[in-house]
Amino acid sequence: MSIRIGIIGYGNLGRGVECAIKQNDDLELAAVFTRRDPASVKILTDTAKVVNVSEIADWKDKIDVAIICGGSATDLPTQTPEYSKYFNCIDSFDTHARIPEHFENVNKVCLENNKVSVISIGWDPGLFSLNRLLGNAVLPDGKDYTFWGKGVSQGHSDAVRRIKGVKNAKQYTIPVESALEKVRNGENPELTTREKHTRECFVVLEEGADAKEVERQIVTMPNYFADYDTTVHFIDEEEFNKNHSGIPHGGFVLRSGKTGWNGETNHMIEFSLKLESNPEFTASVLVAYARAAYRLAEKKDFGCKTIFDIPLAMLSAKDGAELRATLL
Amino acid sequence: MSIRIGIIGYGNLGRGVECAIKQNDDLELAAVFTRRDPASVKILTDTAKVVNVSEIADWKDKIDVAIICGGSATDLPTQTPEYSKYFNCIDSFDTHARIPEHFENVNKVCLENNKVSVISIGWDPGLFSLNRLLGNAVLPDGKDYTFWGKGVSQGHSDAVRRIKGVKNAKQYTIPVESALEKVRNGENPELTTREKHTRECFVVLEEGADAKEVERQIVTMPNYFADYDTTVHFIDEEEFNKNHSGIPHGGFVLRSGKTGWNGETNHMIEFSLKLESNPEFTASVLVAYARAAYRLAEKKDFGCKTIFDIPLAMLSAKDGAELRATLL
Repeated sequence: MSIRIGIIGYGNLGRGVECAIKQNDDLELAAVFTRRDPASVKILTDTAKVVNVSEIADWKDKIDVAIICGGSATDLPTQTPEYSKYFNCIDSFDTHARIPEHFENVNKVCLENNKVSVISIGWDPGLFSLNRLLGNAVLPDGKDYTFWGKGVSQGHSDAVRRIKGVKNAKQYTIPVESALEKVRNGENPELTTREKHTRECFVVLEEGADAKEVERQIVTMPNYFADYDTTVHFIDEEEFNKNHSGIPHGGFVLRSGKTGWNGETNHMIEFSLKLESNPEFTASVLVAYARAAYRLAEKKDFGCKTIFDIPLAMLSAKDGAELRATLL
Repeated sequence: MSIRIGIIGYGNLGRGVECAIKQNDDLELAAVFTRRDPASVKILTDTAKVVNVSEIADWKDKIDVAIICGGSATDLPTQTPEYSKYFNCIDSFDTHARIPEHFENVNKVCLENNKVSVISIGWDPGLFSLNRLLGNAVLPDGKDYTFWGKGVSQGHSDAVRRIKGVKNAKQYTIPVESALEKVRNGENPELTTREKHTRECFVVLEEGADAKEVERQIVTMPNYFADYDTTVHFIDEEEFNKNHSGIPHGGFVLRSGKTGWNGETNHMIEFSLKLESNPEFTASVLVAYARAAYRLAEKKDFGCKTIFDIPLAMLSAKDGAELRATLL
């Protein structure tokens, strides 16, 4: 029998989850829950239902794991605790500073309802966190570096789009190659986020807008751009649609550390991602952890979990013996 | 109270474990067990004892985790099952084809004696295996690549040293940069181990040896070199000692995969290691998993485990709340 998955929220991430489920034979999409009129939501999976989220409690026994595809700012802090009453849940809560509070809220509901919910799954937080932990545990005398990009920052793109005269815009965060090289060379530089990244904007102007003024407003924008080395390119709509409609992302986690009786030996651990679609890759991670949540629930290991708490064997459809024989 | 560690076998790996324990405040080296006369073995830790391995059973209640630093060919297949009678054990068993059999042997003893032993810990098998599993689980429609090096192959170095006229030798396995680039570019090439690696030998000749003949014997040696692109350098002993006395290693694990409804989106996951000392780094991984073995034993989750079965949180001295607040 397949593991029955529900998707809550059907934007880019929800659609990515739907595609990822198709790649896993032991998983099956049961239903997509939406705040919209279900008749207006077209999904790709013939065998799944589209249901208004108001009816979600009726699906309590028809779904094994719910993957919640809402936003971290307002959706997930209420949705994950709420839906953990009915289902084992997975979310991609990514407001790092609020994770401890979110964990406590979700954990309480899970323990009251015998559910397993896994929060903050994706690649950062997610696979990057896993690599930060691994690097710290294996090389305790060392230094961490995380670089993001090259990739689209949704928040920065939105900020540019809010400027008067801007019709459309996309902002790429780009790691500074020379900073990355210094880290790889074991120089252990002290680097601020600003020294590690530059920002590049591709902007389509409204008819008659003042390019110089738009550029000035971008590069001087506090918090978002003022402290960074920012480049602005003005392009036409055709080029924008052709070359800047994707949502690529990625980045690097490095751990530089020393071993030996007097710390005389150097090592470098590097993990990197190069993703053509941020939401589709995040969705693939969510789906692998949905399998793990199902298995933890079968073992009655209830409560809120993070990526740190789950053995990787639980992510795979293969059993322990097959994993040992083929991948170890 | 610290976790009390025993080291069984005191060669390069055992000494590496001793150094790694020093970097972890919650661990303490209790004793080193050796087949040699204990009086002849000088260790670095003032507070630890050196004991002949014949007396190991006396230490049953004085050691929490034993890290077995023997070889995979003849030591570990008997040592890990034997010592799992007395201790939770960690080994670095690296004969991939015999892992299932080793697992069964160790598991049986662990379950009979309420012990946790973790086998095949290090970087390959070990951290590389973890990344292969992660890549397969997250991107099920994809392709795996493992490259080794640049690093010293002990087996190949030994093979060269056995040639008549060779006084000393070191062999480096080197990943082929152009093959690595093809993988990184998402070309998904079909590559044999031979196409992925070249071999480079640094050889010190005996007085009066025939360099041409030694070179011929190296590059035509079946299994070891004949199928590879091999370069031989003859150097003098001084240069050998200056530049080739280390045991560096490393390598790359890549997973190239597709997502999207029709597999139209490409992603690349890459994990790499650059290690100045293979045994010291392997030792650091062993020590982190010793902490995990201790915790599993505290939870009475007995049996043989591999790197796939252990949540990464167990590797860290920090508790869950601190990990969530600082590394997630």
